[in-house]
Amino acid sequence: MYISKSSTFVLLVSSLCLAVLPVKSSSGCGYDACNLGDPNKLNVHIVPHTHDDVGWLKTVDQYYYGARNNIQHAGVQYILDSVIHSLEENPDRRFIYVEIAFFWRWWNQQTNDTRNKVKNFVNQGRLEFISGGWCMNDEASTHYNSIIDQHSLGAEFLRDQFGECARPKIGWQIDPFGHSREQASLFAQMGFDGLFFGRADYQDIDKRTETKTRELIWKASANLDRRSWLFTGVLPNGYSPPGSFCYDIFCDDPPIMDDPRLHDYNVPERVETFIKAAHDEASSYATNHIIMTMGSDFQYENANQWYKNLDKLMKYVNAQQTNGSDVNVFYSTPSCYLYALNKVGRAWTSKTDDFFPYAHHPHGFWTGYFTSRPALKRYERLSNNILQVTRQLNAFSKANLRSSIFPLNEAMGIAQHHDAVSGTEKQEVAFDYAMRLSQGIDAAVDVINKAYDKILPLDSQTPPSGPQFLCQLVNISECLPIEGQERFTLILWNPTVHTISHHVRVPVTKDYTVRDPTGHVIVAEMIPISESTQKIPGRKSFAVNQLVFKAILPALGFSTYYFEIKATEKNNNEKQVVITQHSECILQNEYLRVEIDSQGNLNKITNLKKKISVPFSNQGFYWYGSFPGNNSGSEFQASGAYIFRPISSNPEPVSSKRSITCIKGQNVQSATIVFNNWASQEISLYDDAKMVEVEWTVGPIPVDDNIGKEIILRYDTDIQSESKFYTDANGREVLERTRDYRPTWNYSKVELISGNYYPINSRIWIKESNRQLTVLTDRSEGGASIQDGSIEVMLHRRTFYDDALGVDEPLNETAFGAGLVVRGKHLLIIESPATSALYHRVASQRFYMNPLATYALPPLPYADYSTTYRQTWSALQTDLPLNVHLLTFDQIDAKKYLIRVENYFELNEDDTYSHPVIVDLQKLFQSQGVISDIAEMILTANLRITDMKRLEWITNNNRSSKVDVKKDISLKDLNILLNPMEIRTFLVTVE
Amino acid sequence: MYISKSSTFVLLVSSLCLAVLPVKSSSGCGYDACNLGDPNKLNVHIVPHTHDDVGWLKTVDQYYYGARNNIQHAGVQYILDSVIHSLEENPDRRFIYVEIAFFWRWWNQQTNDTRNKVKNFVNQGRLEFISGGWCMNDEASTHYNSIIDQHSLGAEFLRDQFGECARPKIGWQIDPFGHSREQASLFAQMGFDGLFFGRADYQDIDKRTETKTRELIWKASANLDRRSWLFTGVLPNGYSPPGSFCYDIFCDDPPIMDDPRLHDYNVPERVETFIKAAHDEASSYATNHIIMTMGSDFQYENANQWYKNLDKLMKYVNAQQTNGSDVNVFYSTPSCYLYALNKVGRAWTSKTDDFFPYAHHPHGFWTGYFTSRPALKRYERLSNNILQVTRQLNAFSKANLRSSIFPLNEAMGIAQHHDAVSGTEKQEVAFDYAMRLSQGIDAAVDVINKAYDKILPLDSQTPPSGPQFLCQLVNISECLPIEGQERFTLILWNPTVHTISHHVRVPVTKDYTVRDPTGHVIVAEMIPISESTQKIPGRKSFAVNQLVFKAILPALGFSTYYFEIKATEKNNNEKQVVITQHSECILQNEYLRVEIDSQGNLNKITNLKKKISVPFSNQGFYWYGSFPGNNSGSEFQASGAYIFRPISSNPEPVSSKRSITCIKGQNVQSATIVFNNWASQEISLYDDAKMVEVEWTVGPIPVDDNIGKEIILRYDTDIQSESKFYTDANGREVLERTRDYRPTWNYSKVELISGNYYPINSRIWIKESNRQLTVLTDRSEGGASIQDGSIEVMLHRRTFYDDALGVDEPLNETAFGAGLVVRGKHLLIIESPATSALYHRVASQRFYMNPLATYALPPLPYADYSTTYRQTWSALQTDLPLNVHLLTFDQIDAKKYLIRVENYFELNEDDTYSHPVIVDLQKLFQSQGVISDIAEMILTANLRITDMKRLEWITNNNRSSKVDVKKDISLKDLNILLNPMEIRTFLVTVE
Repeated sequence: MYISKSSTFVLLVSSLCLAVLPVKSSSGCGYDACNLGDPNKLNVHIVPHTHDDVGWLKTVDQYYYGARNNIQHAGVQYILDSVIHSLEENPDRRFIYVEIAFFWRWWNQQTNDTRNKVKNFVNQGRLEFISGGWCMNDEASTHYNSIIDQHSLGAEFLRDQFGECARPKIGWQIDPFGHSREQASLFAQMGFDGLFFGRADYQDIDKRTETKTRELIWKASANLDRRSWLFTGVLPNGYSPPGSFCYDIFCDDPPIMDDPRLHDYNVPERVETFIKAAHDEASSYATNHIIMTMGSDFQYENANQWYKNLDKLMKYVNAQQTNGSDVNVFYSTPSCYLYALNKVGRAWTSKTDDFFPYAHHPHGFWTGYFTSRPALKRYERLSNNILQVTRQLNAFSKANLRSSIFPLNEAMGIAQHHDAVSGTEKQEVAFDYAMRLSQGIDAAVDVINKAYDKILPLDSQTPPSGPQFLCQLVNISECLPIEGQERFTLILWNPTVHTISHHVRVPVTKDYTVRDPTGHVIVAEMIPISESTQKIPGRKSFAVNQLVFKAILPALGFSTYYFEIKATEKNNNEKQVVITQHSECILQNEYLRVEIDSQGNLNKITNLKKKISVPFSNQGFYWYGSFPGNNSGSEFQASGAYIFRPISSNPEPVSSKRSITCIKGQNVQSATIVFNNWASQEISLYDDAKMVEVEWTVGPIPVDDNIGKEIILRYDTDIQSESKFYTDANGREVLERTRDYRPTWNYSKVELISGNYYPINSRIWIKESNRQLTVLTDRSEGGASIQDGSIEVMLHRRTFYDDALGVDEPLNETAFGAGLVVRGKHLLIIESPATSALYHRVASQRFYMNPLATYALPPLPYADYSTTYRQTWSALQTDLPLNVHLLTFDQIDAKKYLIRVENYFELNEDDTYSHPVIVDLQKLFQSQGVISDIAEMILTANLRITDMKRLEWITNNNRSSKVDVKKDISLKDLNILLNPMEIRTFLVTVE
Repeated sequence: MYISKSSTFVLLVSSLCLAVLPVKSSSGCGYDACNLGDPNKLNVHIVPHTHDDVGWLKTVDQYYYGARNNIQHAGVQYILDSVIHSLEENPDRRFIYVEIAFFWRWWNQQTNDTRNKVKNFVNQGRLEFISGGWCMNDEASTHYNSIIDQHSLGAEFLRDQFGECARPKIGWQIDPFGHSREQASLFAQMGFDGLFFGRADYQDIDKRTETKTRELIWKASANLDRRSWLFTGVLPNGYSPPGSFCYDIFCDDPPIMDDPRLHDYNVPERVETFIKAAHDEASSYATNHIIMTMGSDFQYENANQWYKNLDKLMKYVNAQQTNGSDVNVFYSTPSCYLYALNKVGRAWTSKTDDFFPYAHHPHGFWTGYFTSRPALKRYERLSNNILQVTRQLNAFSKANLRSSIFPLNEAMGIAQHHDAVSGTEKQEVAFDYAMRLSQGIDAAVDVINKAYDKILPLDSQTPPSGPQFLCQLVNISECLPIEGQERFTLILWNPTVHTISHHVRVPVTKDYTVRDPTGHVIVAEMIPISESTQKIPGRKSFAVNQLVFKAILPALGFSTYYFEIKATEKNNNEKQVVITQHSECILQNEYLRVEIDSQGNLNKITNLKKKISVPFSNQGFYWYGSFPGNNSGSEFQASGAYIFRPISSNPEPVSSKRSITCIKGQNVQSATIVFNNWASQEISLYDDAKMVEVEWTVGPIPVDDNIGKEIILRYDTDIQSESKFYTDANGREVLERTRDYRPTWNYSKVELISGNYYPINSRIWIKESNRQLTVLTDRSEGGASIQDGSIEVMLHRRTFYDDALGVDEPLNETAFGAGLVVRGKHLLIIESPATSALYHRVASQRFYMNPLATYALPPLPYADYSTTYRQTWSALQTDLPLNVHLLTFDQIDAKKYLIRVENYFELNEDDTYSHPVIVDLQKLFQSQGVISDIAEMILTANLRITDMKRLEWITNNNRSSKVDVKKDISLKDLNILLNPMEIRTFLVTVE
């Protein structure tokens, strides 16, 4: 049972007020509290830890409470209870905790007495929050906006409850299945001194083990240079203890039986085995410090078992020093281990690429989850869109309802988990994530309404205009509440800092006149909804047409479109929409020409202005058969939720024939190409568009041949891409990929397809000297360029085998009794490499910060409505420069705001915009008031940037990571400079 | 690794000095600390508990430490750690603990701080020790001597460490597989107010549930009457919680998810289900109090999980009282539940029979374990023999080495466990029990040596006579250290209070003259060791002969026999031993005549004095095939370690022919009858014997036909036994059994054989008006009378199937690469019913309190030896009356002794001895000094008998259980009266 009154949440996440005070590290915590070992010994840092998935086989609630233990024995409440008690028992003991989604729940249930105990442990450095996000986010399918948000959510909680001693200093991505360079860069910007993770490609690990380079400096951004450098370590045993030293309730390793009077006394054997394990581990690492991760998934439910045995083990191992042993073992934390490495003062190798894709054996490429659960991946991205708009509306309306946004914020925090948006959870858990987002959105809609109730009325006596509601199913052309209505309004909030034109499709059962905010009736064409859309299982709408029109939306503001039912069926003043079938279809506007032949083949796209033409061959849907297997060995690895392993390297076309319907209107021209009864695409060109929209629909994936299928959409061109392609990391910087190649080791290729897959969070491109095809995606997907000139993007997957990585279910999503149907969009950009960035940078930001459409059924006819309610509004007097993105605009309390602004262009990608840009922050606040106080913060807003002092590291070529401490911003000059790819974070007070 | 220096044990079990002080129950503990609920509600007593097997699938050490968790997850150290912490967290919480074998280990490792916490919990009645034995002993295969010892060992520890608040008041036999009347009687004598158990025959439970008589007054001894009455309750769910309310780490039941804001909130459903469970349970019980046992095997490793959920459950259930719920739930203990039942003040039904055999379904009779692991069962009984003798030697020598006896005492305490001597443990664990006993015996031999070092020398300047050693393999005629020696001594300590004659067999490789303590050379005949004995696998001896002679031993004392090698091979003065083969063999002395025909058939035994003759037919070995099965349902129940289920009701004879060897000497006449290469018996009649000895040898049980086999030795006679037979309980009182019948319910018979099996701890008989055949056993065995006139005793078992009750191994004992060979003895008594008791009572006591033979290799020739060392000695000036048994003689410290004396005859079984008898206690101490202080104690010696105040119960016929409080003994009159079957316990101080 869920009581959806979000206001009943105890909102400990409520205020960042502490953060604007200057802070100092307490001398009892942080690096000051570290044991740095003995320089003449092999120092073993024992790190007790638990890894608590924020949902996976069970829901986050079930994990927290320990419900459904038949699925997996795990109860986080007991872990925290238990660890706190064990810390009390011996002051040497330490523990780290990661997932604030769980810690927050637990904290809410504790007495003041317990809280004070915990605060003491934190202040003594004995309980250390590490990473400190709401979850340990996935790195392959997450968007940087949400990574920052989820880390900020955790950081804010920790800051509010514990202060500086609880500020995380280390990235701890022990479980995610591949590691993104952007994640590392963001960590650096969060003030982190290092990153540890557990999983890396087996070939990579082998080489690093051999060369003792498992620890290195990751240069995580060419744009941010040393500000993005991050010490990075690949942990020795994943995140598990060394063999036979697990003392958890889940483990069967021998306890330390140290009463020599009794049978089974095993101290000498255990000590000897441990000393050997320490030496073995040390042989793979460069210094005389090593780390042992003493814990694993949901361990420490009975911490006593762990600590009691560790206490004894350490005592007996250290006692051997009197017999000449060089092993010195002590309780530590990853931060202290990192600090000890730092104090060693050596130089480290570096790298500039990332850790994708991850394979744990020659046939085990974890590249399936880049696409797994595409509907959830889209819903997560859409939820972020709603979250960001809700924050803006809350802030610009001064509604001050931050606590009501918390449920969506929290649900998004949970959804970033590496078994959430990644799609690697059980089906029931996937449903739960979606339900949480849905409930969060419901709460957000309340805020949106309260905000519009303040913004819309022209005077304060005016009653609200009627509730605003979302139509979340417009992607299948369904908006039931407006069906058959005499009149309704559509308000579009543009969350970008730029005026935009935006084409809207409104599914209707009647024809309407549409007025823009000035009252003008605009061209709104009735375009038929495709038959295949109408047949999508679960669609309830009777609408067979959609009204398509172009909206012009002010920056950071809204426009209202007023719909009135037409008296007559047809308005003869309008140009007719022309529909043809089974014939050639040329979509053309002043910028682009798209040629599709009568068999439904996309043959060519021409950029008319740039005179660039890209011919396509065989564009369309293909499927790989999912490798079946019992996973009994590497060669029997099945394709599943994590793993993509095709049976063959040659994907099958989904059909030999296609049908084509060509629709030409004034606002849009489109070709609906139906490949078969489960795959179709609608290629659209809007009147002023500089890119081509491809809306794909896939599903139910047929399974009557008992073969799992992984569906791709492939764009084959003649671009001479020379094995190279480019994919983004988390929606920001783009990395060059080379087919069948890894930058840092001699890659043995076995899996020709899946070994070349990379995450696409927002874009993938191929290019040659003068031509570039860029594909933008509306969600995270996996993709590759398997042949020169070709881009393929995996859209959807349905498998019959579990891939034996824990989830224990095949990835077989169904709805309405059949395989799940998924729909999404690609945007195709045909430009020269020199001009592409301008389009893909701008478009990708608008793709995830889409205008938010809310509908209402106003009682008033237009004449009254238009005099009663505001129909357009902008927070800005003028647009901000095109390369500026408002990443965050969040009202903290009546007068305080948290904002992030970003230059979202990289260096050297655009002549105009790949440069520093100046923003006057006061401009963003013109409707809020005068900025009376301001502090620049680190990315997670939990430390003044002037207080950020990261550890200094030296790379092999003797370059130091040291950077100048930033100066604080002055109220006297609110013009801030944003370098390419720079995000700046501010806490602002207005009067 | 085991360091066998027993002296390094921290002997917390050291002193009973506290116990002689008058004690009062602290007002904070005991019944005073009980919540008695609400008389107008259904009161649910929540009893958190753990059931910690003192060895089963793992050894006691492994269970304590939590080692070998791959076999079974269980670590008692963590249970106790965890419970103590949870008790700290909420003063309402309670816990009970049972097995002091574990608690003692834990206690030894605690800090004073923890000990003080625990003491507080005990003093507040929140931690209650229940039963409080070293283990929860088996009831079917244990001997009363060892039951008392193991309970006393626990009681002494509790008394010493905690005082009166820790004195157990309740028997808690939740797991044993059937319940002995003697156990109940002993509990009553330990001052217990009640007994709860979990297992009873399914038909019995059904009837009791229907008639609400699961709680009753057990009249446990016809001899002791109301002093043996014990309130007894059959628990509602075995010892588990009601369905879906288990909150242990082993359980998957839903936790209480009580945050209504989160998914999976389940409080209303859980409360409703609990209230229903309470009402369901109440429908089977007579009062408005019910008990819920919240725990199970090795539960509470993480007590927090249990208590946290119980706290919530109870809060929410009780909150429903405001909505009219009648359920009142609270933390309690079995004692408090019992006290609440007592306060209800109603009358209860009673019963006088026992709870054997136990069946959990129509084919599931737990009668196999009466015999399982017959070698371990014998070794356990022998170990007790050694323990009691060691105590006597320690006491009479005033060696004051009680702490060195502790290892054997402790090993015996562990061996009483219901998966130890019962034979229902894994093989590895059985080996561990045996090793513990062996190590205990090694330590005891040290004490024996120190005692003899004090006793033997005639003056204090004399050096020790050389180390005394045991020859534990004399049962297979092997004593390697004496083989080929020129001279050696054999000292026999008689632990009974009566002078006895005792025939000794000493395996030798040379012929020896044997001198009695007076120096006379006595008749010692060289009797050949049978070929089948010589071939027993593992036998290393070269001896082919044994010297047989009769020793006369003083009461509570010893005689030394001196062996000197004979100069010539033969002494012509001696009468020849006559050996014949394949011919009739009549064994006869002045009392008995045993007729065996030339085919090896025992045809008749005649009691010549009484002129009673019993013909036998087909006497010999038979086997039942063990039912094979996958245990998938009742009908597929396999025969295994617990269960005896024969394939057929007609056992097969082990052979169709036998060979016979007849040996007639002066001291012994015997017939060695070999049935086949794995079954033989040697029937012996000693010169002055009034009973016939049958030494049986069985094994390796052949398995080449892949049929498990259960071997019996059957005695078929013409006695008109009319379906009745008689078996003892734990070596004391005898119960009448009727074939295919149960005294308290209408028995549906399905298993014709195993349903009639009962434990035989010492004896079984059948009788008619003038004749009785009594078979005495040297260990616990299962047996029955399947036909009138027949007694069968199961000797040995070897099965191929596990019986699916947890042990997960077939019972397939092997040694030296083949099935285990087991050897043992029966004594047959042919008397009238009126005279049988005299023989079987005396013989059964001597059987388990056999003279202890120790050997030594003295350097001195006889002439010197006899003038240097004492050769005989008795602690008594005169024998005590024949019906007096010295059960315990234990030196506590320099001046203190714990003794128990017993009249071991029942009422009405012997004209002379079934009467009260007087013993002058000073006589037992004549060699120790003058008794200067004495207190009579309850059986476990942890309370003065004058302080014992048991609860009063009323039976249905309105009889009260109340008895007069015993008067304390006075130093002025140390003559104490022992009524039939009465054991009296005293703490004695001598000057």
